[in-house]
Amino acid sequence: MKTAGRQTWLFETEPAVLATGTVAGKLESEGPLSQWFDVRITKDGMLGKSWEVDEQGLIRQATETALEKAKLTPEAIDYAIGGDLNAQLTGFYFGLRDFGFRQLGLYSACSTMTESVALGGLLVDTGAAKTVIAGTCSHTSTAERQFRFPTEYGAQKPETAQRTVTGAGMAVIGNTGSNVVVTAATIGEVVDFGIKNPWEYGAAMAPAAFRTIQAHLHDTGQHLEDFDCIATGDLGRIGHAILRDLFAQQGQDPGDRLTDCGMLIYAPEQSEVFSGGSGAACSSLVTFGYLLEKIRNGTWKRIMVAATGALLSTVTSQQQESIPSISHAVVFERRGRVQ
Amino acid sequence: MKTAGRQTWLFETEPAVLATGTVAGKLESEGPLSQWFDVRITKDGMLGKSWEVDEQGLIRQATETALEKAKLTPEAIDYAIGGDLNAQLTGFYFGLRDFGFRQLGLYSACSTMTESVALGGLLVDTGAAKTVIAGTCSHTSTAERQFRFPTEYGAQKPETAQRTVTGAGMAVIGNTGSNVVVTAATIGEVVDFGIKNPWEYGAAMAPAAFRTIQAHLHDTGQHLEDFDCIATGDLGRIGHAILRDLFAQQGQDPGDRLTDCGMLIYAPEQSEVFSGGSGAACSSLVTFGYLLEKIRNGTWKRIMVAATGALLSTVTSQQQESIPSISHAVVFERRGRVQ
Repeated sequence: MKTAGRQTWLFETEPAVLATGTVAGKLESEGPLSQWFDVRITKDGMLGKSWEVDEQGLIRQATETALEKAKLTPEAIDYAIGGDLNAQLTGFYFGLRDFGFRQLGLYSACSTMTESVALGGLLVDTGAAKTVIAGTCSHTSTAERQFRFPTEYGAQKPETAQRTVTGAGMAVIGNTGSNVVVTAATIGEVVDFGIKNPWEYGAAMAPAAFRTIQAHLHDTGQHLEDFDCIATGDLGRIGHAILRDLFAQQGQDPGDRLTDCGMLIYAPEQSEVFSGGSGAACSSLVTFGYLLEKIRNGTWKRIMVAATGALLSTVTSQQQESIPSISHAVVFERRGRVQ
Repeated sequence: MKTAGRQTWLFETEPAVLATGTVAGKLESEGPLSQWFDVRITKDGMLGKSWEVDEQGLIRQATETALEKAKLTPEAIDYAIGGDLNAQLTGFYFGLRDFGFRQLGLYSACSTMTESVALGGLLVDTGAAKTVIAGTCSHTSTAERQFRFPTEYGAQKPETAQRTVTGAGMAVIGNTGSNVVVTAATIGEVVDFGIKNPWEYGAAMAPAAFRTIQAHLHDTGQHLEDFDCIATGDLGRIGHAILRDLFAQQGQDPGDRLTDCGMLIYAPEQSEVFSGGSGAACSSLVTFGYLLEKIRNGTWKRIMVAATGALLSTVTSQQQESIPSISHAVVFERRGRVQ
């Protein structure tokens, strides 16, 4: 296969996004992107016997929806590729175990979405697979339980905090049969700017997004202006402002084309969304539900999604470690007619 | 690239294992495979400021060792691919962050080793990378803290329990330049036999190993006899006996060629090793240190390693969930002269 520079894959066969399935939690379904999601959960609180089982239900339902839209049975899928934020990826593995997929579990925190699409695209592009399903899930209450405090404590959060998105987004990627294709992926390195405050993911992750976007432009000889939209994973409003500063320091101005999935998914006036959304499902919901639709319907021709992951754990936080971050980027383009 | 059946990749360019680096903990260094490890830790107890920092040191040192033996600088590595058992893969990400590698984090519990080699082999075979480094680490004390009880409790364990291996194994995989090559990989599906006891990993994982080995044979039209050795990841003595029963039920007898990394790494008379070793580093230490050396030195020509992962987390255990398991297999062969 074709590569560019030191860390970019060029998918010459242009793997197609055959269909996507998105399932949004209640708050996400009440946000500005509501109309773009396939399934909107309207009930508040726990639906099953635990938050974790609820989250497994999200990825299962997103998978069923994507398969149904692609008119495929589970048997038509060669590999399921993805992950979630739970320790040991129990959302991904438990949620999909009944489909009988060959499963490749990945983890790079909230950049797991683009890691999944990058490797899924690679498998299809190289012929290692005909059809894969790739994506992520997250749940605000499983993340609170794992990374922060029991919800019952009612711990106050600062304005730099981000809300973990409840939802799941899955994409069926195959050889051909859609006007949205994956044309490139850039794999990121770990960037550590020494941020230690787990309420400041945006600040920790902005340098990783900056590094990966620059690496992509450098590897491919392109410019910010070559993209109709560049969406980072989930920096939130504060991280987004920091990323704009990093570009400005290099004399670059991405203008309106630079946006962020964590900013798009909630309206600032929604309750307790703070600096914006985060979580492994933030970029998969926004990308698969909304951004790809804008390619499909003719608004855009070519976009980059650079999801960002904060690589902390409860243990590293308690041990006063910094928060290393990573970002992987993928490029989606329209081919053929508007649908 | 070439595939076989529904879940097997055939690496026609035969990516070469250029060098391996293995770092073994104290108990592992006192075991029967001691002579085969590059670095043997002789000091007991905590070496740095935490068990987690110690584990990060293991994967860092295994990486430095592999690079040194391959006579490569970190800049020569395109991607680092791997993982560990810690929630959010902090061993892999923190341990390797200073090398500046592009990092692809994977998780499939103790089968992360073969998932890493399978995807690393794929990257090199397809030209997505020239050279990668792949592998895993684990540490008995980070695993105890995460999955079981504080060591200070002195909780008694049953004979079905397994000891998490302390160590790390990394392999540099490139286009050419070694007499050991990776020729195939089979990606597994999740198998759940309803085992709920976290002291019975072997019973939970044996069906996954069986399924993946059979899938490999079915996909490639081969037989057990086509391999000089078939090593499962870490079933331990009890899981190994169950796997033999599963073969026997199909009228198959793998004979002496079937072994298990969890059985090989400790002698039964070593202290507190119970049914044998487990942990993400069990199969990487045994494979990279010992099994590949037996190919290199001419004892064997062709082996299969089917590492096995128990996909539980503390949360799923406490929620009384079963333990789904998975196994990915890779095939190593000798090409050219014995070294």
